Amino acid sequence: MIVILSNKVTEERIAEIIQHIEKHEVTTHLSRGVDRTVIGIIGKASPMLAEHLRQLTGVEQVVKISKSYKLASRDFHPDNTVIKIGGVEIGGDQLVVMGGPCAVESPEQIDEIARLVKASGAQVLRGGAFKPRTGPYSFQGVGVEGLVMMAEAGQKHGLLTITEVMTPEYVDVCAEYADILQVGTRNMQNFDLLRKLGTIQKPVLLKRGFSSTYDEFLNAAEYILAGGNPNVMLCERGIRTFETYTRNTLDLSAIPALQTLSHLPVISDPSHGTGRRELVEPMSKASVAAGANGLIVEMHTDPDNSMTGDGVQSLFPEQFAQLMLDLEKLAPICGKRFDSKKELVCS
Amino acid sequence: MIVILSNKVTEERIAEIIQHIEKHEVTTHLSRGVDRTVIGIIGKASPMLAEHLRQLTGVEQVVKISKSYKLASRDFHPDNTVIKIGGVEIGGDQLVVMGGPCAVESPEQIDEIARLVKASGAQVLRGGAFKPRTGPYSFQGVGVEGLVMMAEAGQKHGLLTITEVMTPEYVDVCAEYADILQVGTRNMQNFDLLRKLGTIQKPVLLKRGFSSTYDEFLNAAEYILAGGNPNVMLCERGIRTFETYTRNTLDLSAIPALQTLSHLPVISDPSHGTGRRELVEPMSKASVAAGANGLIVEMHTDPDNSMTGDGVQSLFPEQFAQLMLDLEKLAPICGKRFDSKKELVCS
Amino acid sequence: MIVILSNKVTEERIAEIIQHIEKHEVTTHLSRGVDRTVIGIIGKASPMLAEHLRQLTGVEQVVKISKSYKLASRDFHPDNTVIKIGGVEIGGDQLVVMGGPCAVESPEQIDEIARLVKASGAQVLRGGAFKPRTGPYSFQGVGVEGLVMMAEAGQKHGLLTITEVMTPEYVDVCAEYADILQVGTRNMQNFDLLRKLGTIQKPVLLKRGFSSTYDEFLNAAEYILAGGNPNVMLCERGIRTFETYTRNTLDLSAIPALQTLSHLPVISDPSHGTGRRELVEPMSKASVAAGANGLIVEMHTDPDNSMTGDGVQSLFPEQFAQLMLDLEKLAPICGKRFDSKKELVCS
Amino acid sequence: MIVILSNKVTEERIAEIIQHIEKHEVTTHLSRGVDRTVIGIIGKASPMLAEHLRQLTGVEQVVKISKSYKLASRDFHPDNTVIKIGGVEIGGDQLVVMGGPCAVESPEQIDEIARLVKASGAQVLRGGAFKPRTGPYSFQGVGVEGLVMMAEAGQKHGLLTITEVMTPEYVDVCAEYADILQVGTRNMQNFDLLRKLGTIQKPVLLKRGFSSTYDEFLNAAEYILAGGNPNVMLCERGIRTFETYTRNTLDLSAIPALQTLSHLPVISDPSHGTGRRELVEPMSKASVAAGANGLIVEMHTDPDNSMTGDGVQSLFPEQFAQLMLDLEKLAPICGKRFDSKKELVCS
Repeated sequence: MIVILSNKVTEERIAEIIQHIEKHEVTTHLSRGVDRTVIGIIGKASPMLAEHLRQLTGVEQVVKISKSYKLASRDFHPDNTVIKIGGVEIGGDQLVVMGGPCAVESPEQIDEIARLVKASGAQVLRGGAFKPRTGPYSFQGVGVEGLVMMAEAGQKHGLLTITEVMTPEYVDVCAEYADILQVGTRNMQNFDLLRKLGTIQKPVLLKRGFSSTYDEFLNAAEYILAGGNPNVMLCERGIRTFETYTRNTLDLSAIPALQTLSHLPVISDPSHGTGRRELVEPMSKASVAAGANGLIVEMHTDPDNSMTGDGVQSLFPEQFAQLMLDLEKLAPICGKRFDSKKELVCS
Repeated sequence: MIVILSNKVTEERIAEIIQHIEKHEVTTHLSRGVDRTVIGIIGKASPMLAEHLRQLTGVEQVVKISKSYKLASRDFHPDNTVIKIGGVEIGGDQLVVMGGPCAVESPEQIDEIARLVKASGAQVLRGGAFKPRTGPYSFQGVGVEGLVMMAEAGQKHGLLTITEVMTPEYVDVCAEYADILQVGTRNMQNFDLLRKLGTIQKPVLLKRGFSSTYDEFLNAAEYILAGGNPNVMLCERGIRTFETYTRNTLDLSAIPALQTLSHLPVISDPSHGTGRRELVEPMSKASVAAGANGLIVEMHTDPDNSMTGDGVQSLFPEQFAQLMLDLEKLAPICGKRFDSKKELVCS
Repeated sequence: MIVILSNKVTEERIAEIIQHIEKHEVTTHLSRGVDRTVIGIIGKASPMLAEHLRQLTGVEQVVKISKSYKLASRDFHPDNTVIKIGGVEIGGDQLVVMGGPCAVESPEQIDEIARLVKASGAQVLRGGAFKPRTGPYSFQGVGVEGLVMMAEAGQKHGLLTITEVMTPEYVDVCAEYADILQVGTRNMQNFDLLRKLGTIQKPVLLKRGFSSTYDEFLNAAEYILAGGNPNVMLCERGIRTFETYTRNTLDLSAIPALQTLSHLPVISDPSHGTGRRELVEPMSKASVAAGANGLIVEMHTDPDNSMTGDGVQSLFPEQFAQLMLDLEKLAPICGKRFDSKKELVCS
Repeated sequence: MIVILSNKVTEERIAEIIQHIEKHEVTTHLSRGVDRTVIGIIGKASPMLAEHLRQLTGVEQVVKISKSYKLASRDFHPDNTVIKIGGVEIGGDQLVVMGGPCAVESPEQIDEIARLVKASGAQVLRGGAFKPRTGPYSFQGVGVEGLVMMAEAGQKHGLLTITEVMTPEYVDVCAEYADILQVGTRNMQNFDLLRKLGTIQKPVLLKRGFSSTYDEFLNAAEYILAGGNPNVMLCERGIRTFETYTRNTLDLSAIPALQTLSHLPVISDPSHGTGRRELVEPMSKASVAAGANGLIVEMHTDPDNSMTGDGVQSLFPEQFAQLMLDLEKLAPICGKRFDSKKELVCS
């Protein structure tokens, strides 16, 4: 850590600041430049120390050399994390596709979609039972019943399942019915939820907050890892920018960047990331070319009548099937395998 | 609501779309322009209808004419909401100042700060017992004990109290000890928390999410109002921009804009909004000049040793006292009164 | 165009507004909803009319149905624009790669790089003679001499050349020496420059402003097209977001989105778009998978000693060559051809 | 300057990097931490050195301790710059108000507005003769004739004048007719224009680019100062954010922040900064409370018929006059004087 002092700081204050720092069981090295004086800190500083020093009078800037996250960092875990569920491996050389509707609506709907997802070669069924909605008057999901419907559809068709969990109380019931728990973008910094997810072993797909930096994203993952659950995958799902044509701006640089900074698998969500059906196919391919370990894609048999209003970004089943065929060709060129229709999944 | 159709839509599809819309008990009016055909919708459309229509094939854009929030809108509630707590009125012509540390640290700390806040003329004591922290290794607050310490300090010195509640389970205990409950920026769209806050009557200060629009902010307030709690105040606390000199960009236009769109009181938080001590005083004054109903300002007796690292944005007690003197002069020119040191508060 | 009136507008004012609108040789249609009254405008409205109506007292919002750009829009030009230069076709099924240093530094440097670019299979040599620099003390380029050096290197090695033009006065000299003129991100709205480029026929690569929307980008292209130069290609080069790990956020959704909105070719710049060497390769591939018509990529034989400081994002020659090999495999899967090392180019 | 090395760098490469640095006539100090090795640089480094070192293989991050701008920095010029023009002092304790239409439209229009501006107590007449327009089909201004009209109106009514210059060729003619030259937000990084403005002595009002940081803004000012023109004032005019209710987000923290970082006067533009007439008055007051040295405010006698479409943000003359009365009361409380109607101006 490096502490840059303001150019008006007195000798006396410099001494005080050094004393302050050395209370934290580190050693310091003072360096006087032309315009500024700088204190270097050597030793195992606690992650809180930077925040603490930043507030001292006379300190202009604190530059962290080490990252504030450890367990999520590739520095301390050089090999890729590969999460194995049933026959599926997320984070290795297999490309994993999660498909399905925004929300579970009825047993018939989810069963029919599961059939189509499976037939196309994807490995995981997605669907929301609880929906985070920006207005209080919108459809809020069918609740626990939806979890049951989805679990049945998954089992019947040989698919893993993923569903969103929104609050700590529902972690246990979601974990009972689904194979992967998803944390939505608005909950990326719901720290109570993250802590609770750290106490289970079910894999968690953590979505990037829509205005979060990579650093904040990896710190959020750190909460789950620090709690004892190593099965975390990161999901880029678009960030907020001033462009309004797309619902969000899908930041594909996040894929190779997060894979450099971290050992966790990175999944891309082109459906929420663009909010437009016609952009899902090119951005799915671009995600794979950028190195994504998987995709999570919305598909609906009747998007005109989707209950959440997310039909606008859902693929039609035939578009989804075509995309899977395209990915089968693309994957090997990008160092991945996608054995469409040949996977055996037993959750 | 106005539905703009894509320029390739067929007559047959237009007829289907109109049929679709008229199922929702509204009437339509078709208008054919040079490039585009447009359907106007007349009648009391449900707030979900726009989301729903946007996903229909052949629909290019849906323009809402009415707002998606009702209870929070000034259209339906022309008079200012004035929240009365003890002798303090928030939302009227009184300027309300909430001061105190980022976190409650000890009984002595909060007692001494409460004494100074009161002596300066502010009416509310702020302090966090539970702290939302971006990394899992940071100080997380002293918990329920902190609520007790703060309640005692408030009572002793004749101050109202405000504290942050982070999760639905803690709403009841926070409401027992504090006069105002605060929802932090990361929880603005924690819908379970908002719903729970709708079931009580304690005033709620809702902070704007750090990348939220006014529309999303007012929809979040709508959750609390729709649950039955009319005592909501809005707090501008800075949004995320690409500027990094300030921690956030305090959007003061939000103050008059929200007061135009809504009847709810608007409070400004220049401490989090800037993240720099030296900017708190000018931005506090600017907030009042922009029409803020109140301020929430961090003050600490020993910012060098603040446990949260937020000392960097905390005023020293003498700076806080001077600011109150300045506000006393400024308030009357801005149509507010701030009777420093003369308020009688009994919670 | 649709004009939404404020809910307080009087009947008298409505009549005045309608009179106002009808002066512009269009007809109107009045529609009264529950909360708002709306005026629909039918006829060929001038692009300025929306701006004009927005400022009328009593008008709350103006929604444009038609786009403000015409010549750049696919609505009015359904077929792709294909720009032919020498044997190279930009905008068709050929993938075009432009490679080279940030700045031309010496005849030897540009000659050696040109040789490597050619040997790798790319078709265009890039290099700046004039450099836009954010501080006045930085290296500003070698000027007109650099144009000469680059033209010679291009001719010798059978490569087209592209260089940035920063000011209207230099358009003619740049057009004399280079095959394609580039408008940098800071000049996307330098309207005098755009107008001047409309008066020539040399192809122009227009970079997206780093905080511009698609709409603004296409309006900037419209300036050049409206001046009479149809040879415009669009270049996505990253937008500014709050993420600081990458220099910019490369918005790959812009590629299919701009290709839907417009008929102009779309080129991707992963070098400036990420600002990090290790991200250039994955983002180049992702750009092609997203449908880009071409890439512009920085390559330097000695990035450690690049004079502009952009070495940090320049590929080493061997990385560039490897990328070309990878693109040769990827292109056909993405509906493009990239005949590495087989192109005959004669400018 | 501090150079942080990547954790995989070899001893050999460290030695090379040090050699590299020491070529630039500075000394280095090597410091080995637990995770990273750091090189401190002592001595007068050229502003380009950071850019240069950042690109070296093995360098992870370069932290500048000194600023890249010098002449614009308060570190090297502790006293406020006060620009004196006629009897008006910008940057001292006088509050300066610049009022007028977006564009000069006719001699009668500008004469009548000048009369009203003067009668209200403002000191400077604003008005554009050349207009930067985002689409090529919009009104582009009346040109040089407009400069003449404005100069005549200013002289007749005893007002200074300010007008926008968009291109280096027009600097001389604008400087001939106007007292202050304005650089618009889209030209903040038009470096040729900035360089040309450095060669004259006329005061320049430089607007912040709509997605620029303070650092970039001050580097743009540095261009003009480095050319030899010390008469630069900075203008905050709103930045682009994801909020669309306001046209831009007026960043008032920029006022005290820029005054801390620099000695140059800071002017606020609440008209462009909000894009909404009803927000101009509160944000004007807030700007003064935040410490602005002046305001630039649009006013129009017939905003319904403004030729630029900017009538939506123009005050009516009576609103402008009322604002001046309000500022007269507010200024003294904010340490400024605004002697409405008592100024004698002779340019």
